[in-house]
Amino acid sequence: MSKITYQNGIKSFSCPIPITDYKNILLAHGSGGKLTNDLIRKVFLPQFRNNYLEALHDGAILPSLDGRQLTVSTDSFVVDPIFFPGGDIGSLAVHGTLNDIAMCGAQPLYLTVGFIIEEGLPMEDLWQIILSMEEAASAAGVQIVTGDTKVVDRGKCDRIFINTTGIGAVLPNIIIGAGQIQPDDQIIVSGDIARHGIAIMSVREGLEFESIIKSDSAALNGLVDTMIQSGEIHALRDPTRGGVSSALNELAEASGLGFVLQEESIPVHEQVRAACEILGLDPIYVANEGKLLAFVKSKDSERILKAMHQHPQGREAKIIGEVTRDHPGMVILNSRIGGTRVVDMLTGEQLPRIC
Amino acid sequence: MSKITYQNGIKSFSCPIPITDYKNILLAHGSGGKLTNDLIRKVFLPQFRNNYLEALHDGAILPSLDGRQLTVSTDSFVVDPIFFPGGDIGSLAVHGTLNDIAMCGAQPLYLTVGFIIEEGLPMEDLWQIILSMEEAASAAGVQIVTGDTKVVDRGKCDRIFINTTGIGAVLPNIIIGAGQIQPDDQIIVSGDIARHGIAIMSVREGLEFESIIKSDSAALNGLVDTMIQSGEIHALRDPTRGGVSSALNELAEASGLGFVLQEESIPVHEQVRAACEILGLDPIYVANEGKLLAFVKSKDSERILKAMHQHPQGREAKIIGEVTRDHPGMVILNSRIGGTRVVDMLTGEQLPRIC
Repeated sequence: MSKITYQNGIKSFSCPIPITDYKNILLAHGSGGKLTNDLIRKVFLPQFRNNYLEALHDGAILPSLDGRQLTVSTDSFVVDPIFFPGGDIGSLAVHGTLNDIAMCGAQPLYLTVGFIIEEGLPMEDLWQIILSMEEAASAAGVQIVTGDTKVVDRGKCDRIFINTTGIGAVLPNIIIGAGQIQPDDQIIVSGDIARHGIAIMSVREGLEFESIIKSDSAALNGLVDTMIQSGEIHALRDPTRGGVSSALNELAEASGLGFVLQEESIPVHEQVRAACEILGLDPIYVANEGKLLAFVKSKDSERILKAMHQHPQGREAKIIGEVTRDHPGMVILNSRIGGTRVVDMLTGEQLPRIC
Repeated sequence: MSKITYQNGIKSFSCPIPITDYKNILLAHGSGGKLTNDLIRKVFLPQFRNNYLEALHDGAILPSLDGRQLTVSTDSFVVDPIFFPGGDIGSLAVHGTLNDIAMCGAQPLYLTVGFIIEEGLPMEDLWQIILSMEEAASAAGVQIVTGDTKVVDRGKCDRIFINTTGIGAVLPNIIIGAGQIQPDDQIIVSGDIARHGIAIMSVREGLEFESIIKSDSAALNGLVDTMIQSGEIHALRDPTRGGVSSALNELAEASGLGFVLQEESIPVHEQVRAACEILGLDPIYVANEGKLLAFVKSKDSERILKAMHQHPQGREAKIIGEVTRDHPGMVILNSRIGGTRVVDMLTGEQLPRIC
């Protein structure tokens, strides 16, 4: 039905048929009346096709989870630009929330989606975002089961904001969380860091490199399944806003333990490192959208790492540090040049609207 | 800790202690770093206090629903103004979503909340909204279990937008939905209509009346419980955006049946009717936020109505029409002056940003 091409790594799209009678979003598309109905039937339903959504009830009625615990997570996405190398606000909104569910040691099953759209958004942009969401959701095995659309007057939001809320079922006999972290646990990162933030900043700042830096935006639930089958996982966290540094600081504080990192072990792609230098950013503070940090039982770490290397999302996984009883609540980095420094949480806003 | 007073029906609030070190929201409050952490610990946690939230995980891990079916519903709130007679964007965001869960014949249990905040929002406004959310959630017996905060630069949203997603458990042996509607079903409205829309428009247009028209924003889950215990309910819908007319049109289309309404039976408060006339609005198109429409088995209708009259949210409940096999998919109104007209779905945007 539609043709997708790529320009500078950004998905470009042409829609060969008129989607609706309107080329742009009008305030009336958020009225709850005829045009809202039109949008639901012509744009959302044909993509997000499933029985739950098609009931067109006020909410979706879902099957029982057979006595398993529920996990729920919510995230709003306000990324600017809305289309970027390696993804767009739609795929990001799917990956971001389903990854949060996976980080709880749960299987993501369902997503809800809430759109806040600025009057005047081209209908084709919306259509492309919807296509990306459906593609990302299908690939990860989750269904978009209910939604909501609001339209605000021109100048009262910035093209489109998307909230997604994910629902998952906790995997049997799995307890994953900051409270499970133990001294001597090994800290694994699933691949090279700082891609997402740098992909966004490169577009915003008009930086050009030999090859395009793409966002790492990806679903991590498959990788988590693989890891859980390979050994004892104590905690998982996806280092999004605030980067590896903020994620580790939160976990150090919550667990009351200290973490020691080896800077030279932390994988950063050469071009990403160059871009960080130009932009004056430290990669460990830059957002990722397809990476995870795992705290694993020391004796299982090599086995888990080996399994990760077999998975597309974990090929470059590395052990980057370990947990200690020393300096509780703190993250310490042994730097490349031999020194040691405390890695603090991000202060101030390094990269606004990165997700 | 805080003092709440009322001015022209709008809650006014003074916060006697400095909430954080910042009087206004900064971009860095959405960075995922130190200030986000500060906001969570000093503003959100002290209000939305519960074990799920305090785990500070990427998502909330909730107990199993004992084999019951799940219901999930999502809504974004962009109401303008954010404080209005009878409520604010916070209480509205709680009531709106939990009512959608109740309309599925389910017990609302948990809410997630996603804030999109404009840089510069006074911290006191945020605090007041949080207080309202907690008050509304507690009163309805639901818990706010996880959340997310994004901050966008000044001029890129309008003060604050809130997404809430609700999770409920379907009540045992209850099937409620458009597909259950039968010919001869009686149509009940739980009280006088059009209050919410008119309360908002009165503030926006600076209309003054003898007494202030307050929004009807309220939780309906208690009323639904009462109704379900009193007789056979086939369908429920809260007539929000697009009003009674859009809600009924959607149900007529989905059920393939026709509805006949008696205009003189539809309760509209005198001042609301006067305001509608001034604003050129038909009350059946105006939004409600604390009313429901119920389709009930004809022989149970009087019993259900009587039970509703005993409940604070149903004192003025009335039978306003019935279901017929004639003119499938259409809503017909027998007007006050003796004529008959088709009530169509709202075309165009009558009242933007009403919720």
